[in-house]
Amino acid sequence: MTTPPITLADIRDAAGRLEGVAHRTPVLRSRTLDARAGAELFLKCENFQRAGAFKFRGAYNAASRLTPGQLARGIAAYSSGNHAQAVALAARELGSTAVIVMPEDAPPAKRAATAGYGAEIVTYDRYTEDRVAIGEALAAERGLALIPPYEHPHVMAGQGTCALELLDEAGELDALVVPVGGGGLIAGSATAAKGLRPDTRIIGVEPEAGDDTKRSLEAGRRVAVDVPRTIADGQALATPGELTFSVNRRLVDAVVLVSDDEIRDAMRFAFERLKIVLEPSGATPLAAVLTGRAGPLPPRTGLILSGGNVDAERFADLRGR
Amino acid sequence: MTTPPITLADIRDAAGRLEGVAHRTPVLRSRTLDARAGAELFLKCENFQRAGAFKFRGAYNAASRLTPGQLARGIAAYSSGNHAQAVALAARELGSTAVIVMPEDAPPAKRAATAGYGAEIVTYDRYTEDRVAIGEALAAERGLALIPPYEHPHVMAGQGTCALELLDEAGELDALVVPVGGGGLIAGSATAAKGLRPDTRIIGVEPEAGDDTKRSLEAGRRVAVDVPRTIADGQALATPGELTFSVNRRLVDAVVLVSDDEIRDAMRFAFERLKIVLEPSGATPLAAVLTGRAGPLPPRTGLILSGGNVDAERFADLRGR
Repeated sequence: MTTPPITLADIRDAAGRLEGVAHRTPVLRSRTLDARAGAELFLKCENFQRAGAFKFRGAYNAASRLTPGQLARGIAAYSSGNHAQAVALAARELGSTAVIVMPEDAPPAKRAATAGYGAEIVTYDRYTEDRVAIGEALAAERGLALIPPYEHPHVMAGQGTCALELLDEAGELDALVVPVGGGGLIAGSATAAKGLRPDTRIIGVEPEAGDDTKRSLEAGRRVAVDVPRTIADGQALATPGELTFSVNRRLVDAVVLVSDDEIRDAMRFAFERLKIVLEPSGATPLAAVLTGRAGPLPPRTGLILSGGNVDAERFADLRGR
Repeated sequence: MTTPPITLADIRDAAGRLEGVAHRTPVLRSRTLDARAGAELFLKCENFQRAGAFKFRGAYNAASRLTPGQLARGIAAYSSGNHAQAVALAARELGSTAVIVMPEDAPPAKRAATAGYGAEIVTYDRYTEDRVAIGEALAAERGLALIPPYEHPHVMAGQGTCALELLDEAGELDALVVPVGGGGLIAGSATAAKGLRPDTRIIGVEPEAGDDTKRSLEAGRRVAVDVPRTIADGQALATPGELTFSVNRRLVDAVVLVSDDEIRDAMRFAFERLKIVLEPSGATPLAAVLTGRAGPLPPRTGLILSGGNVDAERFADLRGR
């Protein structure tokens, strides 16, 4: 067995760096939801995080470790949206600059917010071009420090602070339900939760069209699916990360799937009953619970509602079924 | 000077009754909003209250003081929506039943939620009929205890617990910005805030079409306006309450007005930037701050975001300008 890329100590270290910089987001409760789920649920609302998603945690943790020289030259990132905003904001907070490689079809609100934090944006075609190659070439060419969206120990450790806070506030939890895109959030969350209590059940949630991590866990190795077409733009990835998968294959107990319609219903439930705004990816754990796809839940279960970056127009468009 | 109908002690007493029954709602912060307002703002999110609005506080405080005999006979209420749900839920919590007089054009979500808590609903025409007369006749006929939406010391004291919690969590505040409908929330809030620190500035917010409290304060007596037609259905009242006005004329420093378009913009800001759902009335303090109509704000200002009962369809319909 090889040394894991991150440990609970790395996550605690990241938490120290994020103190006073990232928001300690609220943990909401809902009697209605508890009654439907038959369990006590604790909703960690990362939609209230700075830049609207958990991504700021990992981006800032990684950026804060760059040298003064690196910060002076600037930071590069590639992202479907939330990591873009997160890196742009982290760069600004640290007095650096950012160049972000974004897909042409990224939600307009995410693109506008990224530009609003002062970042330069370079676009690519998500269905034909390779963002990693573009990002790496750009970083090499301009001498920028590349902060990947999940394939980095500092990024994964930063994301894990979210579960650490949830457990600190809610007390012991029997299970965590966490969205899975590239796998950084769930890798960090699982490391934090199982580091504190090894029998915590870790349940990942993917959109049906992007079930690469579920398939990879079943195959015991990383497999690729077609580039997913799903409303859950934060999880539209074809294959798990190498580093993240090395963690998740050890620590994730199950990955369940939700359809786009189920995600829409969960977004509406969040709006009308919880009074919070969730973007599609952020609503996937709620979808998994409301549909029962997360399975019978143990008595005390945490959900990481990972982001809320959806504008009013897109929300209205997504409403119909 | 006559004895005020409620005191800080009444609000503290109500807070004790509400403990473990009402939610202690979160106080959100937003750097974006602070930068725009030029002040530190503390957002008391009553959209996260049980039944979706602050109204549960007053309704439960009043209902909890009924005798076993009264509870056995049942409770009556008249309301444009949120008080209806609140009384229905309070009755259910106390093992009683509720009959609610609601306007025919009350938002469907509010009506459905009221029925969902097990209440019987009786409708009337808001533009031609007198809900107070209907409610009182119904209560007399069936032997029900009537809980009015604001004209009652126990209701006003219950609403004041919201400001008490806000001040407890945020620490001293220089000003409070509070929606004004019948005046119960601001009467309770002002009594709590000025009871703790007499120089706290209390700023009320009304929709332009329903400026009855502003006009009444200017006239020094209760005046009536035409039945308001505004998207802020929780504030569509023609004249202030007698009891509430007796408090508000002493304790409210200013009432400012916001237009329906400004309320729509504030709802959108809440959705896209704060990631929370506010109904029109609940967004009026935010509208007053975003437009500058609340005037230059002192360094530490609290906003009571009073409710979030708007369904996804109505939100989509309200979006356009």
